[in-house]
Amino acid sequence: LNGILAGDRLMLSKAITLIESKLSSDKILAEIILKQISPKTGNSIRIGITGAPGAGKSTLIEALGNYITQQNKKVAVIAIDPTSSITKGSILGDKTRMDSLSNNQMAYIRPSPSNEYLGGTNEVSREIIMLCEAAGFEIILIETVGVGQSEALVRGMVDFLMLLYLAGSGDELQGIKKGILEHANYILITKADGENLENALSAKNELISALQITPNNGVVVDSFSAFNQQDIENLWKNILEKINEKSENGEISKKRSNQKTTWFHEIIERKIVEAFYANSEISKNIDSVEIELKAGKIDTFEAVNEIIRKLNF
Amino acid sequence: LNGILAGDRLMLSKAITLIESKLSSDKILAEIILKQISPKTGNSIRIGITGAPGAGKSTLIEALGNYITQQNKKVAVIAIDPTSSITKGSILGDKTRMDSLSNNQMAYIRPSPSNEYLGGTNEVSREIIMLCEAAGFEIILIETVGVGQSEALVRGMVDFLMLLYLAGSGDELQGIKKGILEHANYILITKADGENLENALSAKNELISALQITPNNGVVVDSFSAFNQQDIENLWKNILEKINEKSENGEISKKRSNQKTTWFHEIIERKIVEAFYANSEISKNIDSVEIELKAGKIDTFEAVNEIIRKLNF
Repeated sequence: LNGILAGDRLMLSKAITLIESKLSSDKILAEIILKQISPKTGNSIRIGITGAPGAGKSTLIEALGNYITQQNKKVAVIAIDPTSSITKGSILGDKTRMDSLSNNQMAYIRPSPSNEYLGGTNEVSREIIMLCEAAGFEIILIETVGVGQSEALVRGMVDFLMLLYLAGSGDELQGIKKGILEHANYILITKADGENLENALSAKNELISALQITPNNGVVVDSFSAFNQQDIENLWKNILEKINEKSENGEISKKRSNQKTTWFHEIIERKIVEAFYANSEISKNIDSVEIELKAGKIDTFEAVNEIIRKLNF
Repeated sequence: LNGILAGDRLMLSKAITLIESKLSSDKILAEIILKQISPKTGNSIRIGITGAPGAGKSTLIEALGNYITQQNKKVAVIAIDPTSSITKGSILGDKTRMDSLSNNQMAYIRPSPSNEYLGGTNEVSREIIMLCEAAGFEIILIETVGVGQSEALVRGMVDFLMLLYLAGSGDELQGIKKGILEHANYILITKADGENLENALSAKNELISALQITPNNGVVVDSFSAFNQQDIENLWKNILEKINEKSENGEISKKRSNQKTTWFHEIIERKIVEAFYANSEISKNIDSVEIELKAGKIDTFEAVNEIIRKLNF
């Protein structure tokens, strides 16, 4: 606990490993830690960064992360990756990515988690964010891959959601769903440099005109090159302005309050299911019903009813 | 029921809408239908098709789907898209996609669902597959977007998983995770035609050499062009061969049996949580604890304990 609160990265990493663990002894310890650090959380700026593979997420995070630390702010980078359930991370691995940021003393990079969670990615990620906040990280960048369920997860735990989009990668708008546009605060057309600049600018215009047909909630669309210092400065300035706005009109505190409630319900729902399976009589019952189900003696609904009718809240 | 079993698409669509509905009256009806059709399910070949936006999923599905119907087999196409919670589908919309397949009398295309589900995408998708099987569709193509949690969902409900990958779309291998390779049965490097052919072939080789460093489970890597009739024929031939193999060595029946058990647990877990919230005393309790939580009088763990300690299985 002292280590985490003092910003010791090794202790922070150990605590995150506890949170990700499936062992019930680890879970108990993790809960004690979370309860203790709870008052020290909630004070960071949480920024979600999402986009398809190859959209330039790592490059942006490295550029933006280093720039933020130059402004004397501590940055933590968290990856939410619910995909890899058997082996760790990506083929290239997290270590070869974000080389300079991972050597930056003001930054902490937590690689993709290695296990499938019992308790759900959502809840674990929420708790990792809290640990980083308790360790004094002021800006949390939460990276997630792809256009899929992961956005929906991330959206619920950040103050600000950026969608990265690589121009010229096939069917221009196909991958961008209205649902995402409505939740994104910022859409960046990446790799707006060299021979890709023209592509990026035309994709930007295409998107802006597409946005006009949707219920626009003030999303910013811009092109971006991680090799252009001005672009990085502008991006950070715009993010801070937007967050300031959302902070002043009460949007952020409302969001935090909702996130707290969501987290409360996530924990409760997990605990109910855990308690249910932990009951030895129910557990024996499930085993015997499963055998009948597999043998084709009863159908799935009969099996469910067999278990549920004994429930008594 | 008669309509579904007779293969009436309008009735099939209506039944799917019931399954997707959140209304409890619809849920009851949906459960009755599922119970009735249950014996008529499980006889299709279920193929998952996944890849990032722009990877060529729609193009492949249209080409493969039309080819399959020429072999006198009925094809259903289902999209699993947990993203769009506010508005329907993609900007381009599902109707403008797969033009010729959607006019094919042997095919049924179910567009992306329009609602966020109470019961989870997983369970709903499983049930939609069952409905299509009961309506006599012999091949079910299950499409999902992106490299994210959606693969993990799809993997658990198909016999065969294809991963589509567009060569030349930035950092070649970055987006392909080991976890996916281990679960994919087939990796297709798409758009292997025209000036992209060379890219596709070198990406194929790159992948094959990357695969050698992972626990290889017999995944096939191939290049593919939807405009090359030979490629389509080869793909279908290879899929059938692989499925035949998996059928003969008992892999498929084992998978189906596991899927049944998973579905059983999904329903139980949903029902437990539903029953929990439906209890009026618990519900009142949660409301009052939530108020204290929002006011900062108690922390999240105290709030959880307040609710959980009254649980009695």
